Amino acid sequence: MYRSHNCGELNASHINTEVTLAGWVQKSRDKGFMNWVDLRDRYGITQLIFDEGRTDKTVFEQAKTLGREFVIQVKGTVIEREAKNKNIATGEIEILVTELTILNAALTPPFTIEDETDGGEDIRMKYRYLDIRRNPVKNSLLFRHKVAMEVRKYLSDLDFCEVETPYLIKSTPEGARDFVVPSRMNEGQFYALPQSPQTFKQLLMVGGMDKYFQIVKCFRDEDLRADRQPEFTQIDCEMAFVEQEDILNIFEGLTRHLLKEIKGVEVDKFPRMTYEHAMKTYGNDKPDIRFGMEFGELNEFAQHKEFPVFNAAELVVGIAVPGAGNYTRKEIDALIEWVKRPQVGASGMVYAKCNEDGTFKSSVDKFFDHDDLVNWAKVTGAKPGDMIFLLSGPADKTRAQLSALRMELATRLGLRNPAEFAPLWVVDFPLLEFDEESGRYHAMHHPFTSPKPEDMHLLDSEPGKVRANAYDMVLNGNEIGGGSIRIHDKATQQLMFKYLGFTEDEAKAQFGFLMDAFQFGAPPHGGLAFGLDRLVAILGGQETIRDFIAFPKNNSGRDVMIDAPSAIDAVQLKELHIDLNINK
Amino acid sequence: MYRSHNCGELNASHINTEVTLAGWVQKSRDKGFMNWVDLRDRYGITQLIFDEGRTDKTVFEQAKTLGREFVIQVKGTVIEREAKNKNIATGEIEILVTELTILNAALTPPFTIEDETDGGEDIRMKYRYLDIRRNPVKNSLLFRHKVAMEVRKYLSDLDFCEVETPYLIKSTPEGARDFVVPSRMNEGQFYALPQSPQTFKQLLMVGGMDKYFQIVKCFRDEDLRADRQPEFTQIDCEMAFVEQEDILNIFEGLTRHLLKEIKGVEVDKFPRMTYEHAMKTYGNDKPDIRFGMEFGELNEFAQHKEFPVFNAAELVVGIAVPGAGNYTRKEIDALIEWVKRPQVGASGMVYAKCNEDGTFKSSVDKFFDHDDLVNWAKVTGAKPGDMIFLLSGPADKTRAQLSALRMELATRLGLRNPAEFAPLWVVDFPLLEFDEESGRYHAMHHPFTSPKPEDMHLLDSEPGKVRANAYDMVLNGNEIGGGSIRIHDKATQQLMFKYLGFTEDEAKAQFGFLMDAFQFGAPPHGGLAFGLDRLVAILGGQETIRDFIAFPKNNSGRDVMIDAPSAIDAVQLKELHIDLNINK
Repeated sequence: MYRSHNCGELNASHINTEVTLAGWVQKSRDKGFMNWVDLRDRYGITQLIFDEGRTDKTVFEQAKTLGREFVIQVKGTVIEREAKNKNIATGEIEILVTELTILNAALTPPFTIEDETDGGEDIRMKYRYLDIRRNPVKNSLLFRHKVAMEVRKYLSDLDFCEVETPYLIKSTPEGARDFVVPSRMNEGQFYALPQSPQTFKQLLMVGGMDKYFQIVKCFRDEDLRADRQPEFTQIDCEMAFVEQEDILNIFEGLTRHLLKEIKGVEVDKFPRMTYEHAMKTYGNDKPDIRFGMEFGELNEFAQHKEFPVFNAAELVVGIAVPGAGNYTRKEIDALIEWVKRPQVGASGMVYAKCNEDGTFKSSVDKFFDHDDLVNWAKVTGAKPGDMIFLLSGPADKTRAQLSALRMELATRLGLRNPAEFAPLWVVDFPLLEFDEESGRYHAMHHPFTSPKPEDMHLLDSEPGKVRANAYDMVLNGNEIGGGSIRIHDKATQQLMFKYLGFTEDEAKAQFGFLMDAFQFGAPPHGGLAFGLDRLVAILGGQETIRDFIAFPKNNSGRDVMIDAPSAIDAVQLKELHIDLNINK
Repeated sequence: MYRSHNCGELNASHINTEVTLAGWVQKSRDKGFMNWVDLRDRYGITQLIFDEGRTDKTVFEQAKTLGREFVIQVKGTVIEREAKNKNIATGEIEILVTELTILNAALTPPFTIEDETDGGEDIRMKYRYLDIRRNPVKNSLLFRHKVAMEVRKYLSDLDFCEVETPYLIKSTPEGARDFVVPSRMNEGQFYALPQSPQTFKQLLMVGGMDKYFQIVKCFRDEDLRADRQPEFTQIDCEMAFVEQEDILNIFEGLTRHLLKEIKGVEVDKFPRMTYEHAMKTYGNDKPDIRFGMEFGELNEFAQHKEFPVFNAAELVVGIAVPGAGNYTRKEIDALIEWVKRPQVGASGMVYAKCNEDGTFKSSVDKFFDHDDLVNWAKVTGAKPGDMIFLLSGPADKTRAQLSALRMELATRLGLRNPAEFAPLWVVDFPLLEFDEESGRYHAMHHPFTSPKPEDMHLLDSEPGKVRANAYDMVLNGNEIGGGSIRIHDKATQQLMFKYLGFTEDEAKAQFGFLMDAFQFGAPPHGGLAFGLDRLVAILGGQETIRDFIAFPKNNSGRDVMIDAPSAIDAVQLKELHIDLNINK
């Protein structure tokens, strides 16, 4: 062992102890006759002292050659520090060094190894191994491990069994694009990497393994939007002989446990909200309920006058922004411009200030009188000093626009406190959603989701109205988990494939094994999956997942550190029975 | 919840309790007026009773329709059983059923769901979800989970951090064949699936994450020998600021912990054996030391007479087989045929019986006298009543042949007791091994393994004699883990690539990122990886890994249940910039 202690554990109780430490040179302060070096490892920083009067001359001189990030080993005595540093655990002591070994020299790193670094995203990714030395990244990885361990312990204690499902599976055109793997031994054939272990976990239920989980990598070959990764990690779970209520309770328990154990936060029973209510009230199926600003639908009180914009709209809807009644004309104009950006897409915005004296000042005073505005305030919950913003247009689009505005205003008003946790369940998702592009219905969750029995009769007449036994767990405006009760009989599953536009042959070729399995005694079952990357980021109080992934890929799906993907040689291609087909 | 209790937990203390159970019909015994049904779930079997006198007529009649593997839910009362079954946990009670719901009917399964099934390997794999219902498979999966959890807890408690490394990495021609993944976004380029996270874990060491582990899938596109899988699981570990001794101690501790916690077996400190000693004494670098039969080298006492076979041989080597002195001529001839099979490849075998009276009877009495045989007995450790078998020829081949014989005889003599555990470390592996086919040296472990500093001077003159700081953990004749101290400076790593036949450009293109990393302050580090599939199989007392893998592939790398790999469509190929190149 190169060390007797680590760099985070020595304190006043160790004074006069002989110790050996090893780590990286964080920085040196050379005062000529005295030279202090901060030695860093994963556990902390310990100050070393080289003193012309007390240190062997060779060691003293050698210490002057140390550069940043040199790897060294030192032996010495723990002594009391003159100028104590209350900010670090080892701040009471320093090491009077007697022996110094340079284990490895280091080039000057391309960015500073500090909490606030001077390195941009690109250079940090190229030298990710240096980035990981920085506390924000290192601590994120340690935090992720802690969360994963707590998940495993909690579920194991409840008799869940972690089962590893295969990574080399079968490609299915449903859902996102698969990554595929050409098979050398099976000419012209391909494996696919799993987008999720969905069918395997269902087969485990058929196999009687009634409480399954797995923390598992999944893969999607999608054009990467910001903060998406081609490979990502799920906490994948499934249970048999359960109803939706059981699943909600178990995984609410898990989440409450994590919040308590990891964050020390106790939360009440999670509120439940139907998808329909979430969309009407927040314009969003993953509402952030750390703050209010709930939607007020105003058709009744906004379409009875001669204001043509409102009268032509399917929906007029508004929110009351707390304390925003004093926004200047300039601030309001900027917000109007903000909602008119193509990313939001509103054509304009109406506002109404709620003055402290109970009067109002709106941008549509020409059309609406005091009584109208009293109603607007009532419906949106506006109080004196607030500002009401109204959008109008097609219902779905307008809700989405107002949701974007609501989130933006909450951020600006500091209402999205990362130390506050407001989880909820959104339930009763639609089974199907209409896809404009293909002109047909798609499964909103996936084709294995069970329709609510009471809505089955609508499948032919109003497919969009059929609700599913599907649910999402939402935390601080993010979907962190989602799942459903599954279909567990062949007839319903066949019907579902039919509604989703599969021919009988296609359904059989792709999912025949699952439908076969359902004939051999499949129990009722359901489950859910959490996105681990997102979950740890939110628990860690961060907006982006990248620092919680040791070696992330960039938006082109490249690992810029190892330079992958890359070309492979002709022999390899031949063995795999493929040729390149490149647009020259 | 479909049940109040599971099928393994009810006992006499529950008598008169109203319960709800759900599970699979294991079997029915219909005596006309009385019908017993064994209800099975993951946790056990509970007997249900339908009694014409006490059971509602409809329920009674419905029970007669139940077939094997039907999924049912019952409500009823726990009553004392008349004929108790001491063999099962629930053997004191049965359930007098009042309500019966068929949750799902079942076709007759293609093989019996019993511990000893009538299904062959192929059909069991096709219907793996039914196979998993059987105790031997189900218990293997539960056992695997238990082992994995213990590993995680043990290492986490020692401050190891589990870090997920990427699955989409870079292809390198070194080592086994990679599975590759064409990149859609990076035309003509490919990711590779990792054969191990080797370079990433080393980069984590450079990143200061000084105790890393990961239970992780790895991939090798090899022609599958028996009991190999294209995807397999490793417990991958790495530590910084350690020497070989530290790693051996930590992971010996882990293994001892597993044996104690999982098997209730306490083992002493593991013996350590050099590679050289293992090869000389057992003809094998993974010796099974649950039994003796150590090799005796007999050149000195076998090449001084006129027996040309021995005199022409590089090595004459024998083992004493305990209690085999009474083997018949027929048995001996059969063993001689056994070693002459092409899989073993000996050209013949000499034997010498050690009679109880101290005399000998050998197949070479014409050439060797009593005194010679006394020496043979001394060197091989033979006692009266034993049999000495001798092989001769080129040293390496002969050792391998005698090792095969030793293992075969141990199996026949019942010396390989799966309930006994004899771990050891084999250390001081050669750094390089000569590959006849390519006519050059290859890394025996991998190119990142550190040569022993004291052997470095032999690299040019006698590369085959350079030893590495490399070690294997061996358990009951299986390599269950292996690793090494790594090179951590650029110059040595460059030198190693040179010796392995890489040009400077090749080394840079493939591993430039690692050598760059070594320049920025790489600490001394090393680690090892356990094969989890094999480890759990051995701990579980099994020879084959297949039942410890939920969804294994067959020897052609196929998943016969889901029928993968399979063809993909032309659009997908085009998007991936590849064409098929099939030998028509």
